[in-house]
Amino acid sequence: MEKLDVIGGGSLGLLYAGYLSEQWDVTLYTKTEEQANAIKQKGILVYKEASLRFFPKVKPISSYVDKGHLAIVTLKEYQLSSIMPILKATCRPLLFIQNGMNHLKMLDKLTAENVFLGVVEHGALRLNENTVHHKGEGKTKVSVWRGEKTFLSSLLTYNKQFPFVYEDDWKEMLLGKLVINILVNPLTALYKVENGVLLENPYFLQNMRALLNEVHNVLELKDVESTFKNVLTICKNTKDNRSSMLQDLQNKGITEIDAIVGYVLEEAERKKIETPLLSFLYASIKGLEKGES
Amino acid sequence: MEKLDVIGGGSLGLLYAGYLSEQWDVTLYTKTEEQANAIKQKGILVYKEASLRFFPKVKPISSYVDKGHLAIVTLKEYQLSSIMPILKATCRPLLFIQNGMNHLKMLDKLTAENVFLGVVEHGALRLNENTVHHKGEGKTKVSVWRGEKTFLSSLLTYNKQFPFVYEDDWKEMLLGKLVINILVNPLTALYKVENGVLLENPYFLQNMRALLNEVHNVLELKDVESTFKNVLTICKNTKDNRSSMLQDLQNKGITEIDAIVGYVLEEAERKKIETPLLSFLYASIKGLEKGES
Repeated sequence: MEKLDVIGGGSLGLLYAGYLSEQWDVTLYTKTEEQANAIKQKGILVYKEASLRFFPKVKPISSYVDKGHLAIVTLKEYQLSSIMPILKATCRPLLFIQNGMNHLKMLDKLTAENVFLGVVEHGALRLNENTVHHKGEGKTKVSVWRGEKTFLSSLLTYNKQFPFVYEDDWKEMLLGKLVINILVNPLTALYKVENGVLLENPYFLQNMRALLNEVHNVLELKDVESTFKNVLTICKNTKDNRSSMLQDLQNKGITEIDAIVGYVLEEAERKKIETPLLSFLYASIKGLEKGES
Repeated sequence: MEKLDVIGGGSLGLLYAGYLSEQWDVTLYTKTEEQANAIKQKGILVYKEASLRFFPKVKPISSYVDKGHLAIVTLKEYQLSSIMPILKATCRPLLFIQNGMNHLKMLDKLTAENVFLGVVEHGALRLNENTVHHKGEGKTKVSVWRGEKTFLSSLLTYNKQFPFVYEDDWKEMLLGKLVINILVNPLTALYKVENGVLLENPYFLQNMRALLNEVHNVLELKDVESTFKNVLTICKNTKDNRSSMLQDLQNKGITEIDAIVGYVLEEAERKKIETPLLSFLYASIKGLEKGES
């Protein structure tokens, strides 16, 4: 049985460590000893229609041992710096599943020969330190950033309840998710609405479209219309979900706005393109973070 | 004692009919017979530090008699069409104190020879059909749109507790108020914050500034810096107030966004100037209206 490390005990960490422990020898690394102890005793509870309980190994990240065949890093982008010493030192293949593009900047600093990227299409909401609500079923798309695809093969043959799908072009894959995040997250956070409202409300839909035009100016998307269709489909499939950015504002005030919109603003500055809407949205979310914190 | 009509029983109607009945023979015209009866029995209650009670005459607008020396029209811009038959027919001098610039379009249709404009700097919140909370003390600025200034003279000598001040240039006067309304109202409504937060939060302040630049492109303000300073002063003086647009969204869903931002968007279209932020804000507030209604 292959050894797999899952780093981070947030909603995605619990979800991945839980499901993957059915087939792998999983060790979940949590930020705190308290969370590790709680999961040792009570297991990970994944709540969907029914409740599933999993018992992977679990340790605090402070006692990290570099021994898994693959490590999945589930922390949010703004949390990565706290575990950089561990990431820099490890030789294990690493799979990063952060939103946005900001984490790409640090990949060059890693010694690991095999580095993979993934995008997550699941809806997940952490209810407490050992419970996660699997709110929306989706796929995990994975791609090679550097190294050998073979290290991903056992994930790719994993069961259909929690599927992994291979993508050839990591940049296309990340950009596709980035556009969804830019169009859905800040607007739902600003208007405090579920994803589906963006489709149903013609004024909000109009703003989503205006935002896409600005994003396209900067990122030069290959096919704007099919990109927009894809965003609308995601909104429809997740219509009752509250986006992670809306949840983050309501819970703790820190969002992924820098990884998502911040990245496009940097690109725009580099290319000397004006982005009034993206700048306005960025400042709006940063301002609301400040207000809610 | 001069006869004065106050048309409309909203927060401003109650405030003006109340205070002015100390010196004038005021008749307040309300939308409903119920409100007229309630005020006949209980009077108008103006709540400031202490409560003041006034007993002007009061009638439902359906029994309007064209007899006052001056009529002050206190309805919101989007309510004016409902009383256009009365306004069109009257020969009395009329004073309009609506926000925005949209009501200017209908002034040409009036037969009255003396038409005046005003802007209100009071904070007022209607608590029930006969009670208004006078939340912020300010002035009423008045100017001549057409006709003779003399019809305003007794207002201009009115007491210092509720002062009227004459302005030579009605357009400057309205534009000054318009800019304040554009910068403060939609942003406070969007972020759901009191006016003062726009000053304290550097991100919101940045967006207010970006918005001013767009407004200036369209309206060609004479002095942008002093305009901005003026807006900041108003924000400071009314820091604990919730703007009328925020209140409107929270109460009934209809706002003055058309009279305020809609006017600038029409001007921009006429002048072929792009206004991404104003368009985004307009659609945001229209979308939120739809959501809250």
